[in-house]
Amino acid sequence: MLLEVIGKKAKNASRKLAVTPEKIKNYALEKIADALMTNADYILQANSLDLEAGTKKDLSKALLDRLSLDGKRVKAMADGLTMVKGLPDPIGEVLGEWRRPNGLRIKKVRVPLGVIGIIYEARPNVTVDSAALCVKAGNAVILRGGSDAIKTNVELTRIITAAAYEAGIPEGAIQLIEDTDRSSAEELMRAREYVDVLIPRGGKNLIQTVVSTSTVPVIETGEGNCHAYVEKSADLKMAAEIVYNAKVSRPSVCNAIETLLVDEAIAEVFLPPIKERLAAAGVELRGCPKSRRIIPEIKAATEEDWRTEFLGLVLAVKVVAGVDEAIAHINKYGTKHSETIVTKDKGAMKKFGAEVDAAAVYTNASTRFTDGFEFGFGAEIGISTQKLHARGPMGLPELTSYKYIIEGSGQIRV
Amino acid sequence: MLLEVIGKKAKNASRKLAVTPEKIKNYALEKIADALMTNADYILQANSLDLEAGTKKDLSKALLDRLSLDGKRVKAMADGLTMVKGLPDPIGEVLGEWRRPNGLRIKKVRVPLGVIGIIYEARPNVTVDSAALCVKAGNAVILRGGSDAIKTNVELTRIITAAAYEAGIPEGAIQLIEDTDRSSAEELMRAREYVDVLIPRGGKNLIQTVVSTSTVPVIETGEGNCHAYVEKSADLKMAAEIVYNAKVSRPSVCNAIETLLVDEAIAEVFLPPIKERLAAAGVELRGCPKSRRIIPEIKAATEEDWRTEFLGLVLAVKVVAGVDEAIAHINKYGTKHSETIVTKDKGAMKKFGAEVDAAAVYTNASTRFTDGFEFGFGAEIGISTQKLHARGPMGLPELTSYKYIIEGSGQIRV
Repeated sequence: MLLEVIGKKAKNASRKLAVTPEKIKNYALEKIADALMTNADYILQANSLDLEAGTKKDLSKALLDRLSLDGKRVKAMADGLTMVKGLPDPIGEVLGEWRRPNGLRIKKVRVPLGVIGIIYEARPNVTVDSAALCVKAGNAVILRGGSDAIKTNVELTRIITAAAYEAGIPEGAIQLIEDTDRSSAEELMRAREYVDVLIPRGGKNLIQTVVSTSTVPVIETGEGNCHAYVEKSADLKMAAEIVYNAKVSRPSVCNAIETLLVDEAIAEVFLPPIKERLAAAGVELRGCPKSRRIIPEIKAATEEDWRTEFLGLVLAVKVVAGVDEAIAHINKYGTKHSETIVTKDKGAMKKFGAEVDAAAVYTNASTRFTDGFEFGFGAEIGISTQKLHARGPMGLPELTSYKYIIEGSGQIRV
Repeated sequence: MLLEVIGKKAKNASRKLAVTPEKIKNYALEKIADALMTNADYILQANSLDLEAGTKKDLSKALLDRLSLDGKRVKAMADGLTMVKGLPDPIGEVLGEWRRPNGLRIKKVRVPLGVIGIIYEARPNVTVDSAALCVKAGNAVILRGGSDAIKTNVELTRIITAAAYEAGIPEGAIQLIEDTDRSSAEELMRAREYVDVLIPRGGKNLIQTVVSTSTVPVIETGEGNCHAYVEKSADLKMAAEIVYNAKVSRPSVCNAIETLLVDEAIAEVFLPPIKERLAAAGVELRGCPKSRRIIPEIKAATEEDWRTEFLGLVLAVKVVAGVDEAIAHINKYGTKHSETIVTKDKGAMKKFGAEVDAAAVYTNASTRFTDGFEFGFGAEIGISTQKLHARGPMGLPELTSYKYIIEGSGQIRV
């Protein structure tokens, strides 16, 4: 088994990396950034082969765009590395310390997770920034990118590992599975002996496959069926700005909204102008019966629409009786990602914050802020939509675990 | 599907329980404790039916003992409830709060996990203490105990739920799956829509089955292949006390040691007397070639022995060249549970603490302290041997997640 070799190397490297000083990790990140810039031509050359193959295979324009690199994008990757270098090293942080009546001194210390597997699709930047974040948090990483970007990924990994190992990062800390057969991904998903956690980065199908196949613990990321709820006391001008921004500013991302919930007390005032504005931006609305009585020109929403992350210029619209109905709708159809209420009512605000089950619950702000950078984490490896381990944007601390170090003086348990 | 009904009820209850005040949760715990005492006769009656069936089925004495209740054990369950009642409510704790340059105020708040599934074997006390811990941490719980204890569990759940719901806990917060067919456990392991996390409590086989079958996130608990390493500078009297305590005080539990590692510099002095003392307690030693040159009367250890959690009076013995070999052996064969070094050497102490990959790493103390009560958590739902979410003893905070509550004043993302 190929993965046994890769897994063992990663495990060994992870033990050494766990005790590698911050200085060496930072030096390696700097060297990787330099190497990317110096080797930009090789990267672009490999990338053009992937693009050529992709064009022949008739990949969609969106996919080709995600796959394609240019000088600016390589520079952006290098800048990302420099930024990760600047973040504080989470490893060794003392999370708690106390003494027991029997004299035992217990210290809870932050340690790396160990070996992290990343399964992703055609974005080559995932190769670089996953490697950077994992290494900075002291983890070995096994990368398994999609076949469409394989030549680019092989070249990137060659450059990254050469620079990293020369800088003192243990060999085996960063590895790419070059076999892009489905079976290689499945092997990775079952490699409990070597891999401590798997993070899938990509679309819904990829994530569902990983979740249902993997025996390695998974952090589920990304799917965002998000809502904006305009409560009856809302500043309607603010509400319109927030709804427009949350839908239109970048409709293809997970923190964009997919459904607008409007209080029935203000629906007649709020819906017609926002409908005009959204339509002008190319947004197709699909409404519940009540909303269609106010703006009859829109299509009817189906049950399926409430569940759908459109990832495009479609917005479902529902008129609700009040905050309770809004919360019930969100908790029924949402994916626990990001939800916002626009309101002036402190009670509604509090209720919405407490009862909506989501990673990020906003009052009077766009859902688009759910992001490691916008939260001030300085980095992001994904947005967790599960509740175990990490929730919402995941930065460096979310790539760590902890251990208890206990000092005694001969204590035995009686 | 039965589980759909149970799952929906649990999910609904979990939403209400997440915002149920501490006072009501504590009142319910008190009422459950009272109800257990008042209904002790019914519990013992149901238990005697299970014991009768178990005897007919020729269950082992150990299993029958774990299954059996008496007045004292019922009292112990009630006392456990009172103790959980006294613990601080973790829900609502603000874990962090900061303001972004754009004025957004981000608050990280502790919330319940949601719905917790517990899969366990024949210990009826797991029914009571899982329910207590889950409810106190604001979670709904779905219990799936083994068939051998089913009559006891049904009776316990009847009493618990009646008392809890009367005290104001939402209906559906505590449910037992009465169908003890394997298929009902499998359904629970795949109920991602309703269950946020599964905690298996039991032997290695149960845990392995849950880990490999479950698509619901699992917290792996319990397997402990633990080691004591006597370093050459150790106080040998202290070392003997620790080794004896870690092996003999309760050999059937996960924090007992299974292998003794001894520095070759002191092996000739240390091994003969500890062997005598352990043999007198009925412990069978199995040694590496070097150790058998010193104490030739012991059996040879096989490769399998290094991997085995004996859970009984067997101890593997290996002579090692120093701290590096000890660490390498532990990281190769250990289950990341509890490890101890006995030493006076600060350098060895530090190296062992940093490089041994385990939930609890001790210096000069018995491994037997890895336990929620001994750590001062006041409770324990299990000892996690994985690194994701929780590591080591899990108390109330480990049964929670968090959410971000973000207050804005009209912020949109540009």
